[in-house]
Amino acid sequence: MRLPRKLTAMLDKPSPETTDRNPRDMANAIRALAMDAVQKANSGHPGMPMGMADVATVLFQKFMRVDPSKPNWPNRDRFVLSAGHGSMLLYAIHHLLGYEDMPIEQIKNFRQLGSRTAGHPEYGHAAGIETTTGPLGQGLATSVGMAIGERLMNARFGDDLVDHYTYVIAGDGCLMEGISHEAIDLAGTLKLKKLIVLWDDNGISIDGKVEIASKTDQVARFEAAGWKTFSVDGHDADAVEKAIEDARQSDRPAFIACKTVIGYGAPNKAGTHKVHGEALGDDEIALARQKLVWKSEPFELPEAVVKGWREVAAKGRDSRETWERKLADHPERDRYEVFSSGTLPAGFKGEMLNFRAALIQDKPKVATRKASEMTLEVVNHVIETTIGGSADLTGSNNTKTKGLQPVTAEDFSGRYIHYGVREHGMSAAMNGLSLYGGLIPYGGTFLVFSDYARGAMRLSALMGTRVIYVLTHDSIGLGEDGPTHQPVEHLTMLRATPNLLVFRPCDVIETVEVWEAALLEHDRPSVLALTRQGLPTVREDISENLSLKGGYVLKEAAGERDVTLIASGSEVEVALKAAEALKGEGLNAAVVSMPCMELFAEQDDTYRASVLGSVPRVAIEAGVRMSWDRWLGDRGRFVGMTGFGASGPGPKLFEHFGITPDKVVQAAKDAAA
Amino acid sequence: MRLPRKLTAMLDKPSPETTDRNPRDMANAIRALAMDAVQKANSGHPGMPMGMADVATVLFQKFMRVDPSKPNWPNRDRFVLSAGHGSMLLYAIHHLLGYEDMPIEQIKNFRQLGSRTAGHPEYGHAAGIETTTGPLGQGLATSVGMAIGERLMNARFGDDLVDHYTYVIAGDGCLMEGISHEAIDLAGTLKLKKLIVLWDDNGISIDGKVEIASKTDQVARFEAAGWKTFSVDGHDADAVEKAIEDARQSDRPAFIACKTVIGYGAPNKAGTHKVHGEALGDDEIALARQKLVWKSEPFELPEAVVKGWREVAAKGRDSRETWERKLADHPERDRYEVFSSGTLPAGFKGEMLNFRAALIQDKPKVATRKASEMTLEVVNHVIETTIGGSADLTGSNNTKTKGLQPVTAEDFSGRYIHYGVREHGMSAAMNGLSLYGGLIPYGGTFLVFSDYARGAMRLSALMGTRVIYVLTHDSIGLGEDGPTHQPVEHLTMLRATPNLLVFRPCDVIETVEVWEAALLEHDRPSVLALTRQGLPTVREDISENLSLKGGYVLKEAAGERDVTLIASGSEVEVALKAAEALKGEGLNAAVVSMPCMELFAEQDDTYRASVLGSVPRVAIEAGVRMSWDRWLGDRGRFVGMTGFGASGPGPKLFEHFGITPDKVVQAAKDAAA
Repeated sequence: MRLPRKLTAMLDKPSPETTDRNPRDMANAIRALAMDAVQKANSGHPGMPMGMADVATVLFQKFMRVDPSKPNWPNRDRFVLSAGHGSMLLYAIHHLLGYEDMPIEQIKNFRQLGSRTAGHPEYGHAAGIETTTGPLGQGLATSVGMAIGERLMNARFGDDLVDHYTYVIAGDGCLMEGISHEAIDLAGTLKLKKLIVLWDDNGISIDGKVEIASKTDQVARFEAAGWKTFSVDGHDADAVEKAIEDARQSDRPAFIACKTVIGYGAPNKAGTHKVHGEALGDDEIALARQKLVWKSEPFELPEAVVKGWREVAAKGRDSRETWERKLADHPERDRYEVFSSGTLPAGFKGEMLNFRAALIQDKPKVATRKASEMTLEVVNHVIETTIGGSADLTGSNNTKTKGLQPVTAEDFSGRYIHYGVREHGMSAAMNGLSLYGGLIPYGGTFLVFSDYARGAMRLSALMGTRVIYVLTHDSIGLGEDGPTHQPVEHLTMLRATPNLLVFRPCDVIETVEVWEAALLEHDRPSVLALTRQGLPTVREDISENLSLKGGYVLKEAAGERDVTLIASGSEVEVALKAAEALKGEGLNAAVVSMPCMELFAEQDDTYRASVLGSVPRVAIEAGVRMSWDRWLGDRGRFVGMTGFGASGPGPKLFEHFGITPDKVVQAAKDAAA
Repeated sequence: MRLPRKLTAMLDKPSPETTDRNPRDMANAIRALAMDAVQKANSGHPGMPMGMADVATVLFQKFMRVDPSKPNWPNRDRFVLSAGHGSMLLYAIHHLLGYEDMPIEQIKNFRQLGSRTAGHPEYGHAAGIETTTGPLGQGLATSVGMAIGERLMNARFGDDLVDHYTYVIAGDGCLMEGISHEAIDLAGTLKLKKLIVLWDDNGISIDGKVEIASKTDQVARFEAAGWKTFSVDGHDADAVEKAIEDARQSDRPAFIACKTVIGYGAPNKAGTHKVHGEALGDDEIALARQKLVWKSEPFELPEAVVKGWREVAAKGRDSRETWERKLADHPERDRYEVFSSGTLPAGFKGEMLNFRAALIQDKPKVATRKASEMTLEVVNHVIETTIGGSADLTGSNNTKTKGLQPVTAEDFSGRYIHYGVREHGMSAAMNGLSLYGGLIPYGGTFLVFSDYARGAMRLSALMGTRVIYVLTHDSIGLGEDGPTHQPVEHLTMLRATPNLLVFRPCDVIETVEVWEAALLEHDRPSVLALTRQGLPTVREDISENLSLKGGYVLKEAAGERDVTLIASGSEVEVALKAAEALKGEGLNAAVVSMPCMELFAEQDDTYRASVLGSVPRVAIEAGVRMSWDRWLGDRGRFVGMTGFGASGPGPKLFEHFGITPDKVVQAAKDAAA
């Protein structure tokens, strides 16, 4: 590939444009570690760390406030490597800064099983990794959530306690992904002035030059979204510093286009896609060492360079200590600590129980989306740290309770975010809010549009963020909107996802229970699948939160069980009616409500056997069968969907698709025969 | 909600700005039908059809060439209602144009079960519906595929046979969705000059004013993406006509921002979100009739108005007849008809068989992604109409064969599309290419990034488009990139999706077979899940395409079966090794390869029973168990993943997660005990 002339010229310049040898070597240390680690692993991406080493060095040396000795202090600056394949940039910096869990052995074990230096940065694998990145665009969109978190906390506790920045390094791939649009539009609308994105504008993607697939003027695009923009030579340290300094003063989020050479320093491969995703090879590395005037052996570092980086860490420690002193004397200290801990108030469970006790008196017939709203009225009253929202379906998702004020660019004291028609961006932002610390985000859309949010929802599960997805209109029961809006395979898709709790409550009581269950989970995201249509209250006893067991006998058979009917959500009512009708057929049916398969699977064998029974089983759910096979056994039957839905009134659709008590009776008779 | 002053002023203007009463009434006919149909259904979205009636009338009266008497003639203009909730706009126009399958009874049965007038436009439910819309942004992104299709066909057959436009009406929601970014960036890069997007800029979304969630300057945004842009008053017919005329002359895709009042004509609700998604009510409809000076009863139409619309249809018929005469005399006529029919060449199956026969001689050990590339070399040689591509992973997906030239803005004679890092946009574009007619798109990304593409992939399944998803790196076998890149739940997610074939071939022979199977499907999309790592050739017989049966006995047990091992893809090798080892344990194991559960499920009971056997079964797949439960029975065991993967060399990961012959042997012994 021929290099554009401008890039060729940049290649020949010394690195970076500074007279001070040490910052240049501080950057070259990143390059060397990246080259050597990728070479040793014979796997990885050297190009991005080498290209962005100068920018990252300026960012950390001049601006970032992080403290390796206390990586999670709340007012640290956040650094998100959205271009996660360049993970060696992050690991190298952490090693250089002196993070205890990132000794040189970890760098040497890059991409090896059990190391902290995974192929892409994995949240929780090493200190200071603010979020898992790799799927492109996610880091950028998650950082928007972090930047919202900063603004929310700032509005509550002021500049004294909350005044940090969120910095992001994003690549061309991040900016091509659709989620980037959702993220930057939201950030621009909310004027997240402490969010600064550094774009690694190296003009190269895996297939070759970026321009073969994208000619968007990114600077103009970000300006259209209301961002402050800058364009600099990413190897000119002074220019980068100036741009970041100006960006910090902006009243809007800032985008700094950093023109870089991918694989900077590799004399033959720099500036081409050959340096993106594979080891450079020993020869090219040797030549790069010459070009960079880097004399240290692999995985060794000059003392002066280490000293330079440790000074950065020391400044971070000073910042942290100053902040801690401020906090110690702060009048809002106790509230701040509660806020940032994520702990639920002591009275939470009691309030939930009281609410169930009140509801069981009335036994209202309401949609579970409405039941969810009723529950949220209590939850949002008791818990100060919930942050609600919806992807432009507030009135349908019932996510906004009476007291909640919207979050706006002018006022972040509110607790409700109008995320816009951006399911993916919302989900990533919720991950960011959760990762930020303390805040408990929940957000709504239709269950079917979890399709749009899958990328971020999977990261919720992988990272174990405390995010609650309020997914209404959970079946053909939604009616006339038709098959594009009717989830069929989605419960299965979500249940197949590891570390994600999928709740589908059957009435108002279970809805309160599953909200409680979801809020009690600190390290797992939850999905609440809720109906559009009204459901009667079927529970009679509220003394115990039975949903915490995932599945339980809602109504035992009148005599010895002949068949067990198992259902979730709106189909529990169908099962109950069928059980009643089966009496007339001389069959004793127990009805099991299964609001959460994942929690049920975690119960012991004895309990599960007692619930499922040893008689034939029939499962009923207005979705596909796949996730039910596990519970049905060889003699089991299923009443549900076998294909897509249709447009028409909900009750007619249940008839049409045969999800009725009659069909359940027939299936039960067949099963028990 | 207070209306912005500018909109209030627009409300008071006559509709539209023309001295000719008839075009105004042609638009009002759409409004009346939309109001009345939604009212009768007591469900639906009147606001958008009423707001965009003027724009749509200009578009159809002055520009659109469609022929209701032959709705599918290839050179028709395409009209895509990306804002699919406004389906009554489309149905009203089709009724007015005289589409035979859209009599007034259909309008009266709007959103009723069994009617063609579903809540959102459903492809195949009525003539002239070019694509299913409703999930926002999909129509826009699909139209990009159609516009690419037009350019591809134009490059092959010239302006004489191919010279139509693709028009889109998109709403604020479409433009907020991330997929819109992927679509417009791709369209701008490819300079799709015959694509014209009309934006219904009504400033209202479900949660209220758009500005509470989005302040992006959309015109500037489209310009940044390389589009020609226009801004007009959407109720000024002359201005709209002028803009469309100019847009047609542009050398780039064009974006026309049409400032409109949502629910135009409804005196109290227009311009607010109250008119978006529910019936107006009898009183408001009566007032709207007064305001619009519309005297006809519900579902009745003035003769002059019908005449006006039928003139549009007549012009379309003339265009079609002129075109057919051109085609009749055209030297390329035969080739054109083959191209646009989608028929495979007669020799196709034979070539596939020959290729398998050649491969079985060599029995190469190759990754199935490589086997796919080898197959594509044959496929792309035999079939002229395949259009390849990748979401910036060409070298990893192995989707580009030797002869394929890239499609560029300057030259559409190629057959390979660099879709960029845009899985969702690629998938929607492939839907558009398939819907366009004749062309057979296939496109690659990593299996895990089907997460990003879900929204469009579901529409592939719902519409039954002939799209082939080449999804490589299909398990932990990909190794060091780690859990963000390792699919675990994705095979289940895709298998749970109705009307989608999920293929996971185990060696080079099966890879050829599944490509053949996928290409033979005219009405179903296919997923090919392929390995990064090499796999030995395990098949010995190639006389029959066994993959067409979905599952088959690859290696029968030496004696009477004690256990059946079932696996797909890379785990078939594991199963074979385990079967061998089980001999030493005195157990006779049959090995079943299951490249496609959906096709296997379609076989008759006898065949399936013969394959599965009545002995205990063990399934092996490097994914979650869920989709296997169906085939395992009560005594079955599963060897696979129970959570997310990890970063490390692939072989070590298989050891680490216990997907090994040893573990299968143990599971088989347990099962058979």
